Amino acid sequence: MLNHTTSIHWRDSIHHDGSARYVSNPYPAFGETITVKIRVATNAPVQAVYLRTEPDGEQHFAEMSAHPPEKGLRWWQGNLHINEPTVHYRFVILTQAGEVWHYGAMGLTNYEPLDRADFQILADYHAPAWLFDAVFYQIFPDTFRNGDPSNDPKPEDFEYRGRRPHTIGWGEALPHGMMYGQTYYGGDLQGITQSLDYLADLGVTALYLTPIFKAYSCHRYDVADYDTVDPSLGGESALLHLAEGLAARGMRYIFDMVPNHCGPKHYWFETAITQPDSIERDFFIFHHYPDDYMGWLGYKSLVKLNFTSQELRRRMYGMENAPFRRWLRPPYSVDGWRVDVGNMLGRAGKDQLNGEVLREMRQAIKETNPDAYFMGENFHDATAQLQGDQWDGVMNYRGFTKPLKDWLLGYNRGSVGLNKPIQSASPTPTDAMQGAMQTQLGVIPYAVALQQFNLIGSHDTPRLYSLLHHNENLLRLAVILQMTFPGVPCVYYGDEIGMQDRAGIEPSRDCMIWDEKRWNHDRLTFYRKLITLRRQNVTLQRGGFQILAAESDMFAYQREDAHNNVIVIAQRSQNPRPAGGMTVWQGGIADGTCFVEYFSGHSAVVENGQLMLPSLGQGGTIWMRKD
Amino acid sequence: MLNHTTSIHWRDSIHHDGSARYVSNPYPAFGETITVKIRVATNAPVQAVYLRTEPDGEQHFAEMSAHPPEKGLRWWQGNLHINEPTVHYRFVILTQAGEVWHYGAMGLTNYEPLDRADFQILADYHAPAWLFDAVFYQIFPDTFRNGDPSNDPKPEDFEYRGRRPHTIGWGEALPHGMMYGQTYYGGDLQGITQSLDYLADLGVTALYLTPIFKAYSCHRYDVADYDTVDPSLGGESALLHLAEGLAARGMRYIFDMVPNHCGPKHYWFETAITQPDSIERDFFIFHHYPDDYMGWLGYKSLVKLNFTSQELRRRMYGMENAPFRRWLRPPYSVDGWRVDVGNMLGRAGKDQLNGEVLREMRQAIKETNPDAYFMGENFHDATAQLQGDQWDGVMNYRGFTKPLKDWLLGYNRGSVGLNKPIQSASPTPTDAMQGAMQTQLGVIPYAVALQQFNLIGSHDTPRLYSLLHHNENLLRLAVILQMTFPGVPCVYYGDEIGMQDRAGIEPSRDCMIWDEKRWNHDRLTFYRKLITLRRQNVTLQRGGFQILAAESDMFAYQREDAHNNVIVIAQRSQNPRPAGGMTVWQGGIADGTCFVEYFSGHSAVVENGQLMLPSLGQGGTIWMRKD
Repeated sequence: MLNHTTSIHWRDSIHHDGSARYVSNPYPAFGETITVKIRVATNAPVQAVYLRTEPDGEQHFAEMSAHPPEKGLRWWQGNLHINEPTVHYRFVILTQAGEVWHYGAMGLTNYEPLDRADFQILADYHAPAWLFDAVFYQIFPDTFRNGDPSNDPKPEDFEYRGRRPHTIGWGEALPHGMMYGQTYYGGDLQGITQSLDYLADLGVTALYLTPIFKAYSCHRYDVADYDTVDPSLGGESALLHLAEGLAARGMRYIFDMVPNHCGPKHYWFETAITQPDSIERDFFIFHHYPDDYMGWLGYKSLVKLNFTSQELRRRMYGMENAPFRRWLRPPYSVDGWRVDVGNMLGRAGKDQLNGEVLREMRQAIKETNPDAYFMGENFHDATAQLQGDQWDGVMNYRGFTKPLKDWLLGYNRGSVGLNKPIQSASPTPTDAMQGAMQTQLGVIPYAVALQQFNLIGSHDTPRLYSLLHHNENLLRLAVILQMTFPGVPCVYYGDEIGMQDRAGIEPSRDCMIWDEKRWNHDRLTFYRKLITLRRQNVTLQRGGFQILAAESDMFAYQREDAHNNVIVIAQRSQNPRPAGGMTVWQGGIADGTCFVEYFSGHSAVVENGQLMLPSLGQGGTIWMRKD
Repeated sequence: MLNHTTSIHWRDSIHHDGSARYVSNPYPAFGETITVKIRVATNAPVQAVYLRTEPDGEQHFAEMSAHPPEKGLRWWQGNLHINEPTVHYRFVILTQAGEVWHYGAMGLTNYEPLDRADFQILADYHAPAWLFDAVFYQIFPDTFRNGDPSNDPKPEDFEYRGRRPHTIGWGEALPHGMMYGQTYYGGDLQGITQSLDYLADLGVTALYLTPIFKAYSCHRYDVADYDTVDPSLGGESALLHLAEGLAARGMRYIFDMVPNHCGPKHYWFETAITQPDSIERDFFIFHHYPDDYMGWLGYKSLVKLNFTSQELRRRMYGMENAPFRRWLRPPYSVDGWRVDVGNMLGRAGKDQLNGEVLREMRQAIKETNPDAYFMGENFHDATAQLQGDQWDGVMNYRGFTKPLKDWLLGYNRGSVGLNKPIQSASPTPTDAMQGAMQTQLGVIPYAVALQQFNLIGSHDTPRLYSLLHHNENLLRLAVILQMTFPGVPCVYYGDEIGMQDRAGIEPSRDCMIWDEKRWNHDRLTFYRKLITLRRQNVTLQRGGFQILAAESDMFAYQREDAHNNVIVIAQRSQNPRPAGGMTVWQGGIADGTCFVEYFSGHSAVVENGQLMLPSLGQGGTIWMRKD
């Protein structure tokens, strides 16, 4: 038995997650019986462990069997019958002193936790296999690359709410007096097609494009036609050309769908306000017909759609040629949807139809292509939508980005109606990041956790590099976590070459820099190396997740499977963490195991249950087990 | 400002619940704006408090305003717009040092908790007003009182699965070789009618009768006809006579409905197995038609009903004369339903229809009588069914009975398939009881919490007095908590006169003792006095709930409203708690406030934030504020 000289209490050594290390089949069929495992320190005074389930609503306990000690830990194993679409379970631990503890997704309690804090596993769940080794790249088309200036929006193209479009010079600040929405840079699909070699060389495998459908603003969230590619992006022919280019490189792409609202120039809305008896009138929520209607957060240019209308549902996703379906089919063969404002979709006062609408959308999409990725925007707690029957994943602000940014920059939240944001004086404690990540991960099935869309920023948030005041160490720390955390990483265009926000330009929507002399080539090399690791390392793609340390300025976790352990360490302080041990025995890592740091090549060995680390400066490190 | 000499940290002084003390209207209409309050210690270093909501899925913060200090506490107040059927909310607390804390139904965290741990309030919720001052009395008809021996079951009455009924002498043990189910004591509805003066004198206001419909066992859970009163209970005429007797005394009654399963002699099942093409065949789940079918936990005498059948739903609760509806109407005017096996109802493998069926049942019942009580059996976590759209309440084993029994007797759980129960060596820690009660109460709307059916035992559990080895102090402690905890108390027949389980008799199903010489008259007086208090004291019926102390052997909470504070103290140890203070300032109780103990008349005064208590022996005490 190990001589555990560390401060880890046996209760903190308990671990289970839904990865293949802990469940014999993370993707079981209905009716299958799988084995479920939990592990605790060998020296823990545990007398018995029970698997607690609730088949058809009735409590059931099954005593688990103990395995012989292994690397300082003892595994307990039991059978779990997959007898419902979602099976929830937790563990009851009886100590030798006769204490009873309960271990579930929210951790350990001395009382019976709520069922909603149970672990969960899904029956007959189909995970799109291509997501495992995918690395996304997000593009905001107007500012990525102007491949064909001939289609740049010109004032004579249209008038919209009294304004006409202008295209300005690449990277120029918005001229005084010009409105953001109708000022374009001229980026288009041709530009993306011309950049595919660059993207393939970077290593990304899939693109996420913000809206490309016909609209009257540079962001195109005011969709005027869900069935037409915006001519100023090159139209359908440019899209087909892009699709060919992607297919030739084995790359995939997903589109941005906006079912929560449309633009006021959509013919549904134009019909609704001009024809009082039209069925389209029911697609919208009129406070006073026809001139006052509900908009997204009150914006009249983003007209809220009303999903109490069955006809709207049919047109949006129900009918054979509904946009949610048709773009997934050849010749476009889009690989999935990112859905805008997924948190508010189908919700309006008395009508809270979010879950119902998302389930129907999922069905329409998966019927068309079971491998399509169905991913939603949600800045908040989306776990209720991540139970296997709604989203495959969400933009993981809440489970990843925000806890991390709070830890690096401090808590900072605002909302409509609040004069100034709520801000903490200092970065949040490490155990707060741990708590936020663990609770969010814990209450969704692990198969779903592996599909979360992990980002460090998007077109809706300032670039992290700018928020960090150009601290390269912390930026890289964030990217290292993003690429190693459970879920699918997405690079926001330009982050890989060191772009930053500039005065006079919409945050994070600056024009992509194509002048290589202005690139941060070290950053690009760093990204390439990390993307390579992420694509090659199955442990990072599918492995378990266990937090190993949460010191005042240091956070460490491991990803593990039966064959490998990868330890990720984030050190936020400018003051280096002195050389010394970090307890890892609770991760099932035996003395004598050697780890090599991925970037520096430094090695470290486990002694007396601790990984003997060199001094760690500000930033992130990735320690790969070396057999 | 008080000189707080106690060990309560300011963070432990934070309190909110959904009672009228903290929300200006616990029963708001949709569209109404109410005020919400939270309080913390005056000396807490709180800079600002924000109300965090999520209208239509989008995060919203509103800064709350601070009231002047009052009794050592500061109230913070904000507006809550009731803009959804269920509004969930929590609080964000910014300290002077710039720390951010989050306070929700699961307590305080330094990270953003899950939405599912938010407080909740319902719009347009109709609470049956009669429940507030109701005290129930549960009767198991066969063993309560034999009012008419002429209808006692006799062998010639029927044959059932090869057995014939026998009625044995009142209180006699089951003779050797006789089956429990078909052995009767002869209790009937006439007996209950004859006991109404006794019950009115005890003070109870409502009866809960276990099944009275036609069946072939003494417990009558094998219902053969949901529309017929069992002749051996006196039939429909006896029921009408009982209804008259109850009405004359202003008393109410609820019935036990068994929609999860029926008896094999129900004509639905008899039709199903003899007519392969019958619609009734779909009412059941056949593993192999017609001889092998699903029973409740495998019991073939309790035939599982299949709620995928719309026709079953129609007959059970949908149609105008469905039993769930018709018994609520005159001349029977039943005041509600206790629903058997509410946890498993509508659940069978792939078909998990529990929520859907309960919502439909609720609608059928409330359409018939909005004041009917819809209450389910659920030994486990029922909070998902207690969100306002399913049960009014459940038999509160999980939120009250089990935490309390675990604290008095130790954790003890078994299940099908487990050789011996999981047992703790000692009674569970006091903070475990606190955690169990707080989490269960926290995540349901407070309007629903006030409707939980609080019991210390039922026909399904051994009598607590017997489990406690006849410890009168602890029995009374339990009853004191039951009568003062949020929810509606129910006395199990015979507990009020000191009945206990006996060898050879089904636990808790012994015959009611009508020989007054064998009564524990002190117990009866105790019950009468407590029931009187519960019926008269609005604070106990509707007030807030705040735990004030959780010492190693002592547990204390207060119920409060704008006008009153009631402090309840439970001391489990035989060793008295020495005379001394208990911190109460965090309950908004000012120095100088005097309390008088309800039973003993002892008084105690608050000094330096502490209630200066006399020595407290084993048992419960109730301290009423005296102005």
